[in-house]
Amino acid sequence: MKKSDPFIVETQYYTCCDPPDELVLQSGVKFGPITLAYETYGELNPEKSNAILVCHALSGDAHAAGYHEGDTKPGWWDVVIGPGKAIDTDKYFVISSNVIGGCKGSTGPSSVNPDTGKPYGLSFPMVTIDDMVDAQRHLIDHLGIKKLLAVCGGSMGGSQALAWSIRYPDCLQSAIIIATTPCHNAQQIAFNEVARQAIMSDPDWQEGDYYGKTIPARGLAVARMIGHITYMSDQSMEKKFGRKLIGKERLGYDFNQDFQVESYLKYRGDSFVQRFDANSWLYISKSLDYFNLKAEQSLVEVFSKARSSFLIVSFTSDWLYPTYQSKEMVRALKSNDLDVSFIEINSSYGHDAFLVDNKEVSHILSHYLARISKTLNAV
Amino acid sequence: MKKSDPFIVETQYYTCCDPPDELVLQSGVKFGPITLAYETYGELNPEKSNAILVCHALSGDAHAAGYHEGDTKPGWWDVVIGPGKAIDTDKYFVISSNVIGGCKGSTGPSSVNPDTGKPYGLSFPMVTIDDMVDAQRHLIDHLGIKKLLAVCGGSMGGSQALAWSIRYPDCLQSAIIIATTPCHNAQQIAFNEVARQAIMSDPDWQEGDYYGKTIPARGLAVARMIGHITYMSDQSMEKKFGRKLIGKERLGYDFNQDFQVESYLKYRGDSFVQRFDANSWLYISKSLDYFNLKAEQSLVEVFSKARSSFLIVSFTSDWLYPTYQSKEMVRALKSNDLDVSFIEINSSYGHDAFLVDNKEVSHILSHYLARISKTLNAV
Repeated sequence: MKKSDPFIVETQYYTCCDPPDELVLQSGVKFGPITLAYETYGELNPEKSNAILVCHALSGDAHAAGYHEGDTKPGWWDVVIGPGKAIDTDKYFVISSNVIGGCKGSTGPSSVNPDTGKPYGLSFPMVTIDDMVDAQRHLIDHLGIKKLLAVCGGSMGGSQALAWSIRYPDCLQSAIIIATTPCHNAQQIAFNEVARQAIMSDPDWQEGDYYGKTIPARGLAVARMIGHITYMSDQSMEKKFGRKLIGKERLGYDFNQDFQVESYLKYRGDSFVQRFDANSWLYISKSLDYFNLKAEQSLVEVFSKARSSFLIVSFTSDWLYPTYQSKEMVRALKSNDLDVSFIEINSSYGHDAFLVDNKEVSHILSHYLARISKTLNAV
Repeated sequence: MKKSDPFIVETQYYTCCDPPDELVLQSGVKFGPITLAYETYGELNPEKSNAILVCHALSGDAHAAGYHEGDTKPGWWDVVIGPGKAIDTDKYFVISSNVIGGCKGSTGPSSVNPDTGKPYGLSFPMVTIDDMVDAQRHLIDHLGIKKLLAVCGGSMGGSQALAWSIRYPDCLQSAIIIATTPCHNAQQIAFNEVARQAIMSDPDWQEGDYYGKTIPARGLAVARMIGHITYMSDQSMEKKFGRKLIGKERLGYDFNQDFQVESYLKYRGDSFVQRFDANSWLYISKSLDYFNLKAEQSLVEVFSKARSSFLIVSFTSDWLYPTYQSKEMVRALKSNDLDVSFIEINSSYGHDAFLVDNKEVSHILSHYLARISKTLNAV
């Protein structure tokens, strides 16, 4: 592909785990069939050694890069993935997989239960980060890849990369873990729980049985607004909005919105409702709270199972997933004599920093991948 | 009063601004009559020079110290106010005033409009921090006090103390400003706005016209949960809750609550609904967002009007009202050659630190007040 070509991509679908070969979920429930939405960019080399799995965050989807036919906005990580970019699709074969539990083409609570002909709603089983990764493993098998050059992700994508490194240590050469944590702490659980309460207290939520009826738009919008504040930083909000008013010269002295930051959040909340399913939000946020690398063993013991290299990245202004959580992992990885590179990048963008065009992130990713590829070729 | 006496107190009420002598609010609206709930502790000395006005935070009330007859819990700042305590009621005459717009005995949206015989609801005028202070000024006049020894408060109470220092510079000897800011920044506005949206998107809110009907309990509970997270710190939540489960050994794999931090927040949200009016929350949170010492002039210019001494206190783990906001005021006060003491206190309690028993806070308050009293007596 020439760099000037429009980078047009399409979402694909893979279905596995048909009964009686269902996936055994972490809860013990057997579940299938499972469809995963995914996209690929670039070409798999003959040795099948240049594949990178990209995992998305809470509200992400399989559309990580390029443009869907007719779209004016590219995928969510187009700043990083593409021809000549940090994750260079001229060199690497990139697989971007949606998660189970989602609402973007993969099996989730809004999918139709083949046994009933109706959407699952809350009869959808609870899924965990491990379950998401187990389903992705089926996809990678299907694509004929034995060992991924890298599994890469930010935020919840980083949790998936961590789970890959422990569950399938021999299936990845490296794990790229950005802005994430070995487990949610109390504050992270708290923000998720308040957002869940906002959704579940919306009378339109109806215990999750709202498909074909009125969606719990108000609750989901509030949930998203809470999320947005936590994804930005004090600094970035101040720089972007400060106390700027919405097209008026003075305060309104009423309950209409006065400040640009208010209308921005409302807009983001309301538009999110158009593109995301409230039940999926509940399921996926719960999977994040449940994820706990340290559930049964110390982090040092857990990482003793890992075989890959690690790149750990955090951001100075990310107060939702603060650097100390990344450092905890770095220490445990080093204790296991694993190859681990760690960098805390200066950025004012808060948790969102990993999604923003950032030369340092791109530089680090491209050089790290080049090094890992060289190691692989030298073996 | 002997120290062993039970410190029994009663709320009192003062009504002023009867038509045609209404209060002219910052919005330009004339409003009255206005009732203020207040409590007093200790005795006013013959010189009337030992009076301290204590101002409360968003959800506070006039009951700052001691016990109401039959109660088992004392007022909200009983750790600081009382016989022999930092604000020593054996020495000082303490006035604790509720704010207009509130729901704790002062005139607010839940009060009955004498013109209609019905609760004001959203026909209650927007009130600002300046308006709250102007109403308090009437109360102080009524009590026959020309000059307060101190006006003291944390969070929104600090905003009121700031407004006192600028609006009535000759009426206070000192301003004690704890965990506050010259104005809300974008993030502070954002948290308030999301909480307002949670309330206003509750169908039971009914544009504020819910008195005598179902109250918007779900929305207000979510608003309070958001608030609670911001009042605590990452550290204090981790110490108190971590990932501890609610009386069970394993995760539930359902949408019931799993973690203690979840049930704590839900409990705090639900119990808040029993004691606070949703409309009052809307009005008071808006007054906080509107408050802006720098609206028309630089902070240095604004503080050129001040005549009092200042004690500014912030807390290391208070990420909602971070120390840099206090320091901005300290610099502007120093530029005006005013007497200003500043301390950032080590505490893991986040914004709530000012409400918690803290020896350093008590020590600083008692010594500062002793110094200010001495200065006054020397004049």
